[in-house]
Amino acid sequence: MHILVTNDDGVQAPGILALAQAMRQVGQVTVFAPDRNWSASGHVKTLERPLRVNETLLADGTSAFMSDGAPSDCVALPLLGFVDKVDLVVSGINPFSNIGHDVTYSGTVTAAMEAVIAGVPGIAFSLASQDKPVGVPTDYGPAGQIAAIVAKKVLEAGLSEGVVLNVNIPYLSIEAMKGIMVTRQGLRVYRDALDRRIDPRGRPYYWIGGEAPTSVNEEGTDVGALAAGYVSVTPLQLDLTNYKAMEELKIWEWK
Amino acid sequence: MHILVTNDDGVQAPGILALAQAMRQVGQVTVFAPDRNWSASGHVKTLERPLRVNETLLADGTSAFMSDGAPSDCVALPLLGFVDKVDLVVSGINPFSNIGHDVTYSGTVTAAMEAVIAGVPGIAFSLASQDKPVGVPTDYGPAGQIAAIVAKKVLEAGLSEGVVLNVNIPYLSIEAMKGIMVTRQGLRVYRDALDRRIDPRGRPYYWIGGEAPTSVNEEGTDVGALAAGYVSVTPLQLDLTNYKAMEELKIWEWK
Repeated sequence: MHILVTNDDGVQAPGILALAQAMRQVGQVTVFAPDRNWSASGHVKTLERPLRVNETLLADGTSAFMSDGAPSDCVALPLLGFVDKVDLVVSGINPFSNIGHDVTYSGTVTAAMEAVIAGVPGIAFSLASQDKPVGVPTDYGPAGQIAAIVAKKVLEAGLSEGVVLNVNIPYLSIEAMKGIMVTRQGLRVYRDALDRRIDPRGRPYYWIGGEAPTSVNEEGTDVGALAAGYVSVTPLQLDLTNYKAMEELKIWEWK
Repeated sequence: MHILVTNDDGVQAPGILALAQAMRQVGQVTVFAPDRNWSASGHVKTLERPLRVNETLLADGTSAFMSDGAPSDCVALPLLGFVDKVDLVVSGINPFSNIGHDVTYSGTVTAAMEAVIAGVPGIAFSLASQDKPVGVPTDYGPAGQIAAIVAKKVLEAGLSEGVVLNVNIPYLSIEAMKGIMVTRQGLRVYRDALDRRIDPRGRPYYWIGGEAPTSVNEEGTDVGALAAGYVSVTPLQLDLTNYKAMEELKIWEWK
């Protein structure tokens, strides 16, 4: 089995090394990632300029490809034939969780979506390391072990057409984790605030400030599972239609 | 009613002028848009740097705000208090349709999503002007008329929580349009191909080439409605959970 490993934090991010090492327990691995950090870049396909691909080395001395394209390009190029047939695309390990509405912003998730649009199973892995103590390097080891378990299972069992898996891993030792829970997308409450400041030349500028988003800790959701110490596995779809709202709108008169 | 008008093509794009003019028939209008083109930028929120806001003029001499932030920032800043309370956010008019999987790439749609996440109704407008003859300026007039009808109806009837409207308008005169159809998201078949070339210095570079995506012309979808000459109104949701796949995954054993 040939597994493509990518991310949106760039090829030098620690999370992709952990993911590549974990995937080597599952199959043959090609790493193909952006040459810089594209966090919160959303779903981009580069059509207006050509892309370069260069070889580089991960911190464990293994080879990787990097491109000046966006995360989605780093999925598109290999799947369009830059490398041999790919059986699975994994993206991450993102250093922060991607839960609730985060998924609509997440480059980690959209890289996995790009794979699924191309007909290849895609899994996004994120680690809730925002919960770890400050000033300590992130330990991606347990998350890598979980990623290997999930990837192996997906390769064995397959995923239905159009399903993207969004996996979030609590920042705990393997022993402390409660297990793997299949969840739905939960809710995040964003508490952004406008922070207006004046620069040294007297002109205003603006930060999107405020407090960190809070999570609505509901059972059965990615948010709730993580908070309870579970790995959350949320199947996402590319069909964004709100079928219930369709019925409501169908009785509208347009004039 | 106070309507915020934005886009992802930048404040100087012809489509936003048409949309602003149409919205002035419906309520009080503030234009707040990116100072450059962010097409296919996806959902981005700028948290790592401060943003500037400057005043500019549209081509009809009316005032507008522009920011060096992404399309989502141009929704977030006003809704966080840069302008008075907003009742509706409209985004567009995008010069090309956003149908099928396009919606996961579309900056026009994600600007409307940003509004809905913040609790304000959001509508994305796109015009299928890819169907017009080459070398003729795009006529946004009929699309503006449709936008006014849809916006007025949304302000009257309201939208359920979490619903984003994705409106696609055929490139036809008002008389030639068949009507407004409530649709689901259809399918696009991407026919991208890897195009490897050699630069003047002998080094390879890559285009994501191939043919334009084809649409699966299915009844009841945005794709099918547009092809039949209808305006498509597709309600989208922010919950991407695939509930059917959840049931399938729940019986998996993880080991």
